[in-house]
Amino acid sequence: MIAKTPKTPYYAVIFTSIKLKDDDNYNLMSKKMMDLAKLQDGFLGVESARGEVGITVSYWKNLESIKKWKFNIEHSEAREKGRSIWYDAFKVRICNVEHDYEFEK
Amino acid sequence: MIAKTPKTPYYAVIFTSIKLKDDDNYNLMSKKMMDLAKLQDGFLGVESARGEVGITVSYWKNLESIKKWKFNIEHSEAREKGRSIWYDAFKVRICNVEHDYEFEK
Repeated sequence: MIAKTPKTPYYAVIFTSIKLKDDDNYNLMSKKMMDLAKLQDGFLGVESARGEVGITVSYWKNLESIKKWKFNIEHSEAREKGRSIWYDAFKVRICNVEHDYEFEK
Repeated sequence: MIAKTPKTPYYAVIFTSIKLKDDDNYNLMSKKMMDLAKLQDGFLGVESARGEVGITVSYWKNLESIKKWKFNIEHSEAREKGRSIWYDAFKVRICNVEHDYEFEK
């Protein structure tokens, strides 16, 4: 759902991807990485949706926590598989969330 | 597809939403706003996907261009309809994209 993030500032990593193919292994790996990310220091939440492109936005306390997650061994191996097997293209954007607001009925 | 954005820094607006209902008017309005956004000064690109939540990320040259788009009259009217008719909840995050990288096969 919509991530419950703390007061700004915090960080967002926008991961936009186009998949070559979808298979059970992808879905398993995707779930595994989501579960693992949630255990990391500084992880604040995640939102994900897929249409023509997939967009996953993960939220982090600071750049340090993003860097640690990037160098996590299991995550690095998963990214390597992503490049070689599943993704046709992707873009990663590291962002400082300066301001946010919300609406709820 | 994946937005072709210029060298960092630039800005991203992450719009995450949960819809109450979907109708033809929503889809028409959504397309109209997308077309209108593309005409604005400082607009750099947009990516969108929908699953349990919808995520639309639009990219902008600077805060000034985001503010101008926010106060565009047609866009303001569309947002008002969004609050009253279509959305159960949404969150908007204004972000400074500090760093990005990409992969293509």
